[in-house]
Amino acid sequence: MSKAVEIVEVAPRDGFQPIGPWIPTETKAAFLRRLAAAGLRRIEIGSFVSPTAVPQLRDTADLLEVAARLPGLRPQVLVPTARRAREAVQAGARFLVYVLSASEAHNQSNVRRSVAESVEDYARLLDALPGDVELRINLATAFDCPFDGRMAVGPVLELVRRLVAMRPDVEICLCDTTGRATPDHVAQLCAAAAACCPQVANWAYHAHDTYGLGLATTYAAYQEGVRVFDAAAGGLGGCPFAPGATGNVATEDVVWMFERMGTDTGVSLEALLPVAQDAAALPGASAGGRARQALGPCAAAEERITSLEKSAR
Amino acid sequence: MSKAVEIVEVAPRDGFQPIGPWIPTETKAAFLRRLAAAGLRRIEIGSFVSPTAVPQLRDTADLLEVAARLPGLRPQVLVPTARRAREAVQAGARFLVYVLSASEAHNQSNVRRSVAESVEDYARLLDALPGDVELRINLATAFDCPFDGRMAVGPVLELVRRLVAMRPDVEICLCDTTGRATPDHVAQLCAAAAACCPQVANWAYHAHDTYGLGLATTYAAYQEGVRVFDAAAGGLGGCPFAPGATGNVATEDVVWMFERMGTDTGVSLEALLPVAQDAAALPGASAGGRARQALGPCAAAEERITSLEKSAR
Repeated sequence: MSKAVEIVEVAPRDGFQPIGPWIPTETKAAFLRRLAAAGLRRIEIGSFVSPTAVPQLRDTADLLEVAARLPGLRPQVLVPTARRAREAVQAGARFLVYVLSASEAHNQSNVRRSVAESVEDYARLLDALPGDVELRINLATAFDCPFDGRMAVGPVLELVRRLVAMRPDVEICLCDTTGRATPDHVAQLCAAAAACCPQVANWAYHAHDTYGLGLATTYAAYQEGVRVFDAAAGGLGGCPFAPGATGNVATEDVVWMFERMGTDTGVSLEALLPVAQDAAALPGASAGGRARQALGPCAAAEERITSLEKSAR
Repeated sequence: MSKAVEIVEVAPRDGFQPIGPWIPTETKAAFLRRLAAAGLRRIEIGSFVSPTAVPQLRDTADLLEVAARLPGLRPQVLVPTARRAREAVQAGARFLVYVLSASEAHNQSNVRRSVAESVEDYARLLDALPGDVELRINLATAFDCPFDGRMAVGPVLELVRRLVAMRPDVEICLCDTTGRATPDHVAQLCAAAAACCPQVANWAYHAHDTYGLGLATTYAAYQEGVRVFDAAAGGLGGCPFAPGATGNVATEDVVWMFERMGTDTGVSLEALLPVAQDAAALPGASAGGRARQALGPCAAAEERITSLEKSAR
């Protein structure tokens, strides 16, 4: 198995989504360009959802056009229904992320339907999907639900099995929506899912850092063979329909960890840090992560002082 | 092997040490009382070091008297030399933490002597140690040094082997002084140390959260059988002689993780949170950690709203 990982930058979707003040489309476009230039080849650039529910992402179609002009970038967009998937494809999307929740309560809160209805709608989405469109499933609340608490592994696996049976060559992302998953739980579900659905080529993991466990669970998933990881520059994030779920794990923290481990991410931390800094400084943003501060301008000065002091000894 | 872990609260030493404004002894004593009441039975209450170098900890002898009146508490104090160990024992200390660094440059910077001199002095300490005094070795920069960078596992193991040979029944704490250790590195050294020195009854691990890896490495050490973990309430911390090394992993984050995993810590998170909040709010303190915010008063209100909304559906 390859050691390298792919990081999916989700700040433009999961990170911008809860920000109240409007971020101009040109500002978002500049973030896409800079994130891509830092080496992030896959970016979740937005979603096709109700503009009333998530007004911040209502310009996703425009951003698809921006992303199409960035060579090598694979932009993905989130869709909650087959109808929104059609809309996204018509707008030029070639990588869809279909979101449903493992828990009934969160699925109702997030997409206003039962899990069974989401699964039926997924079948409709598959029927209508053009052959050149890539697909991922985001399984929200795979570990913990803000309403129902800890999710038992068995029923979640059953749902995964059912979705995989409908179409095997889909990336499956197990999402810790609340940030309450522990590393042992993540390891358990990732291992069980890979064992029960060996036909799945790509497993992904989506961490929130609400309780500081973002890197611990990301590492646990990596140990079980997951190689695709969601993260948001500046540690932005949070689900507006999952109270207390603030902050995706910061991309710069994830890149720092993997690169220190000798695991290639393809991302330049040097190029990413100023982008993450600007993301964290967006009006209305709630930022997180540690590496940004530890590796910031003062840290560089401190390192230099340390080095000079050492030569002076 | 027991699943339960012991958390050593180090805020009163590692956390208070870099704080400039004087914390009155009575304030420190109140922290000890409240930390002990929250279930922290082992607290590093201070150090016997030069009061010029670390003025904040010059009242450690007074705090030993305070700690002696707290039933069930095992206070430990840090000492860098055999001479300071004698001073500590004379002041009533019954649990010493002898600190030396794996790296020459950090040992010079921290205790102004070579590693070989620290080892020789450790022999003197052992010769003079009363039989009723417990002992731990804090091996600083066991993974990474602010001056020398990443530490190779081999020479660190050699040093551990040498120290263990001098006296086997000592707790050994592998310290990530800079917070730059990755979970795979921590797992590797912990596993190798346990394998090469099976006579060591207690291995401990000391994490800094500078780059957000505090819980990831703590979990990695736990997976390798370590059961004693240092942490600081409020995520306070930092070594004044290790530039950029801010913030021990927060005790509340560590307790949250282990308790969520079903691993007993003996600590009441509910009792700990307000103490951690007050520690983080100390003038001059640099705080860290995530659980404090995630579980704070607003989080409780949000949980309540979620629950009410659920019943209203």
